[in-house]
Amino acid sequence: MLKVYLSGEIHTDWRERIVDGSKGLDVAFNSPVTDHAASDDCGVAILGAEPDKFWHDHKGAKLNAIRTRKGIEDADIVVVRFGDQYKQWNAAFDAGYAAALGKSLIILHGKSHQHALKEVDAAALAVAEEPEQVVQILRYVLDGSLP
Amino acid sequence: MLKVYLSGEIHTDWRERIVDGSKGLDVAFNSPVTDHAASDDCGVAILGAEPDKFWHDHKGAKLNAIRTRKGIEDADIVVVRFGDQYKQWNAAFDAGYAAALGKSLIILHGKSHQHALKEVDAAALAVAEEPEQVVQILRYVLDGSLP
Amino acid sequence: MLKVYLSGEIHTDWRERIVDGSKGLDVAFNSPVTDHAASDDCGVAILGAEPDKFWHDHKGAKLNAIRTRKGIEDADIVVVRFGDQYKQWNAAFDAGYAAALGKSLIILHGKSHQHALKEVDAAALAVAEEPEQVVQILRYVLDGSLP
Amino acid sequence: MLKVYLSGEIHTDWRERIVDGSKGLDVAFNSPVTDHAASDDCGVAILGAEPDKFWHDHKGAKLNAIRTRKGIEDADIVVVRFGDQYKQWNAAFDAGYAAALGKSLIILHGKSHQHALKEVDAAALAVAEEPEQVVQILRYVLDGSLP
Amino acid sequence: MLKVYLSGEIHTDWRERIVDGSKGLDVAFNSPVTDHAASDDCGVAILGAEPDKFWHDHKGAKLNAIRTRKGIEDADIVVVRFGDQYKQWNAAFDAGYAAALGKSLIILHGKSHQHALKEVDAAALAVAEEPEQVVQILRYVLDGSLP
Amino acid sequence: MLKVYLSGEIHTDWRERIVDGSKGLDVAFNSPVTDHAASDDCGVAILGAEPDKFWHDHKGAKLNAIRTRKGIEDADIVVVRFGDQYKQWNAAFDAGYAAALGKSLIILHGKSHQHALKEVDAAALAVAEEPEQVVQILRYVLDGSLP
Amino acid sequence: MLKVYLSGEIHTDWRERIVDGSKGLDVAFNSPVTDHAASDDCGVAILGAEPDKFWHDHKGAKLNAIRTRKGIEDADIVVVRFGDQYKQWNAAFDAGYAAALGKSLIILHGKSHQHALKEVDAAALAVAEEPEQVVQILRYVLDGSLP
Amino acid sequence: MLKVYLSGEIHTDWRERIVDGSKGLDVAFNSPVTDHAASDDCGVAILGAEPDKFWHDHKGAKLNAIRTRKGIEDADIVVVRFGDQYKQWNAAFDAGYAAALGKSLIILHGKSHQHALKEVDAAALAVAEEPEQVVQILRYVLDGSLP
Repeated sequence: MLKVYLSGEIHTDWRERIVDGSKGLDVAFNSPVTDHAASDDCGVAILGAEPDKFWHDHKGAKLNAIRTRKGIEDADIVVVRFGDQYKQWNAAFDAGYAAALGKSLIILHGKSHQHALKEVDAAALAVAEEPEQVVQILRYVLDGSLP
Repeated sequence: MLKVYLSGEIHTDWRERIVDGSKGLDVAFNSPVTDHAASDDCGVAILGAEPDKFWHDHKGAKLNAIRTRKGIEDADIVVVRFGDQYKQWNAAFDAGYAAALGKSLIILHGKSHQHALKEVDAAALAVAEEPEQVVQILRYVLDGSLP
Repeated sequence: MLKVYLSGEIHTDWRERIVDGSKGLDVAFNSPVTDHAASDDCGVAILGAEPDKFWHDHKGAKLNAIRTRKGIEDADIVVVRFGDQYKQWNAAFDAGYAAALGKSLIILHGKSHQHALKEVDAAALAVAEEPEQVVQILRYVLDGSLP
Repeated sequence: MLKVYLSGEIHTDWRERIVDGSKGLDVAFNSPVTDHAASDDCGVAILGAEPDKFWHDHKGAKLNAIRTRKGIEDADIVVVRFGDQYKQWNAAFDAGYAAALGKSLIILHGKSHQHALKEVDAAALAVAEEPEQVVQILRYVLDGSLP
Repeated sequence: MLKVYLSGEIHTDWRERIVDGSKGLDVAFNSPVTDHAASDDCGVAILGAEPDKFWHDHKGAKLNAIRTRKGIEDADIVVVRFGDQYKQWNAAFDAGYAAALGKSLIILHGKSHQHALKEVDAAALAVAEEPEQVVQILRYVLDGSLP
Repeated sequence: MLKVYLSGEIHTDWRERIVDGSKGLDVAFNSPVTDHAASDDCGVAILGAEPDKFWHDHKGAKLNAIRTRKGIEDADIVVVRFGDQYKQWNAAFDAGYAAALGKSLIILHGKSHQHALKEVDAAALAVAEEPEQVVQILRYVLDGSLP
Repeated sequence: MLKVYLSGEIHTDWRERIVDGSKGLDVAFNSPVTDHAASDDCGVAILGAEPDKFWHDHKGAKLNAIRTRKGIEDADIVVVRFGDQYKQWNAAFDAGYAAALGKSLIILHGKSHQHALKEVDAAALAVAEEPEQVVQILRYVLDGSLP
Repeated sequence: MLKVYLSGEIHTDWRERIVDGSKGLDVAFNSPVTDHAASDDCGVAILGAEPDKFWHDHKGAKLNAIRTRKGIEDADIVVVRFGDQYKQWNAAFDAGYAAALGKSLIILHGKSHQHALKEVDAAALAVAEEPEQVVQILRYVLDGSLP
């Protein structure tokens, strides 16, 4: 079984397209909490309010790290998607974290980000543009069949 | 001796301010190649031209990775600076890479980036706004003196 | 599944409150032997009496270490509870051991211990006061739902 | 050369007695910042004031962790001293951290703490009561001579 | 259960002979994609054509590395077969990779390759000539019975 | 579940006494091949005769190492029994190997071997004389009950 | 300082060209014994003759492994050269060994070997054809200057 | 520079013969305390008398472990000598410890011990009978010259 962690962009349906496309394959997917509001506020919701936004964010980011670290450390493959919006530094951070652990990295992004992501892409075993390509990679890695 | 790697932004003088401010301290600094043009073109300059920009970038990013990895792996402390311009995904990638190796991370950025960098900051042992604060940290870590 | 080790205080019902509150969640809990007398005397009960109290304690502490080490090494998350009584150095030792292994740490203690536990808290991904908050964290990490 | 980290109690002269007694031996000592006030306030002094005491402490504890981690990770031997006062959970945390990294541990404490420290002592290669015994251990380990 | 990765030559039936011979043993086998054409072209088939043969090969080799690395890292035993044809540098690369990870290596080759493979054989726990000997080794390792 | 590897002496029934005594406990036992003749001759029986006794032994010892290494690496606890006969250097080698991997060691031997085994015992978490004590340890570690 | 291990082909002057070209750079080079006869016969010359060529080779290959392993493990960068002659499986083995340890790999070979070396090249951070390119890489990595 | 740890027998002059023979080579030797009485009594001499011989030995063995572990962990090569007398289980323990850490092992013993040491020899990169052969190995590893 392949354990795959899906990191990065949370505002499009790329995860669903990969998960749906992989039906029938021996793959277990994991991902961060993708509910933006919950992800931002989890820290203060559980551990108490913070007047300072920095610590508000800090508490939440650390709770999310419990899930993210386990997801990456348990994974065989880490897929990191960079979308068109936002800074997405957490996605690049996850990619670096996964690379240092020796995970197989697949980076997913549009052509316009090629230059800005060159260091991230250079650490990857595959750079794809569409979620369906990731599905094809998973199928090939599992049973050797090509599209 | 403290070995410190200075990752991230290459368009302001933050490295110089840290290195100059640390005169007399037992610190050895390392950093990526900060000549933007050399860093972009090193791959093709040494290993041969590529008509496709993706592979042009790819060859260069891999050569730079030889230096970056050694710099991070040898370091006790990795300082990562996020500036006001560009995507800076390589900086976040370095931070993730360093975090996974258990390095002590110091993140340096302006207040406006606090929310976008919350996951990176959450992995750090210090979050500073000015290079002089990094100097003060290095001095305190080495000899216990405060500003 | 999350594997969670519950270290520390053995004289209140905090473990039961976490385990009971986590019913229905995909969590496997582990903990030290919490029978104080058995924990103190296991070494000599099995391996033979010692006239010197130091070696009496030593034999027992080493048997308990077989269980503790496995519990911590197998865990994704290590929760360490500091109560109001006793030195509880073994709890702090477990926290340090878990931190060095890169485990996600949750520290549980009352407000009065904040200053004395600052180094331990600084290594944690969450600091909570009530066992129910730990349950909420586990639920959030598993399925993203907030209280 | 032996690299020795001296962790724990900061209110008596045990470190000086070890360092002075080791004159002429091939040992390099390291230790945390032992100026109590500086150690407590370093975070806010460098990185900015915090109205909440928890975050005041948190910022300081993390700066101190930069020094502590390096000291422990670089060491061959970690000596941890437990005195008669305070909770000293940071000392026990350091001991656990060092144990998990496979460092040779020497624990230094009076007889009255034997039972409370049994788990910590069980992870050690030596348990001593006086700093002079630590000096004798270092001398024996280096050149085989006994007192 | 023994997890066994079968690396190397893809043009004879040695894998089938080992897998068939091991029927009834508690062994799980894994191997690279052995369809030569698929293995060569997988990169461009999924990720897009490359005019330069070097990058054509490069993309494919990296996709295959996702499977190979997982296969070797998950294995208890790595069997590497060297046949009579081709350079087979990937087989020797896999052997080196497995050796550095501390895997138990079994090398399978004819007598004529003995001198050329001496460094690879020197890292192995067994050097065999016939696939049936590998089956006998697996049976002996599992239940102690000899042929 | 506890995974326990039983290393050492093969001429008495100590393994049976531990395995039988542990009926009902959640323990999985593993051990080397204990058929002395098979263990000595496995190498040449499978891989071909050797005129030189050194290489005869060498081939066998390496095949046995495939099983031994996996047994020790997979184990939570390694029990090493030293009997009254033979050099038993392989038992001491296994103990050292297990110690370096951080396994919990239980050493089992009669009083007469105490001085000769002091370095091995010093690396152990328990030193027992009778197999039944090992059973009691396993029971205590699993469910906290004492004899 | 960069530590560079030069593995592979021993029949051309590529090592000299790299070492000579790197005069003045802060690089320490290491390499295997490149005297072919000594390398083949070292085992029996020191440890005694073997009538069987396999064990003759085996003893030598293991002595050479003492040097090779240290060379690779100490290195920051491992350069592996594939020439036009011989099987060179030891070169590919070294490349795999270095890759698994996370070393920065530079592969050096002529165009004709591109397809056969695609898996090895895919693990490298640079693929060069001429020793002078390796010198240029070392210079760039050290001081950022391009040819 | 090669760092070499000389473990095992302390009653003959084999260490002197290796050290003397290696004059002029770039080797740093380390070894356990070879004063038998000091080694046996160091624990109680420094840390206080024990009426029970087991704990007398235990305290000493642990102090010696501080030196032994550092010696082995720092070494590139571990030479283990088995003499004609005593059980020498500590020597075999050191060999196992060094093997698990991936150190290059050289085993030194007379022909009569070949069968009893077959598992230890099987983990070694060289098996020699005379100290002078070890010197020849060190010289060959360092400069490629043969006797």
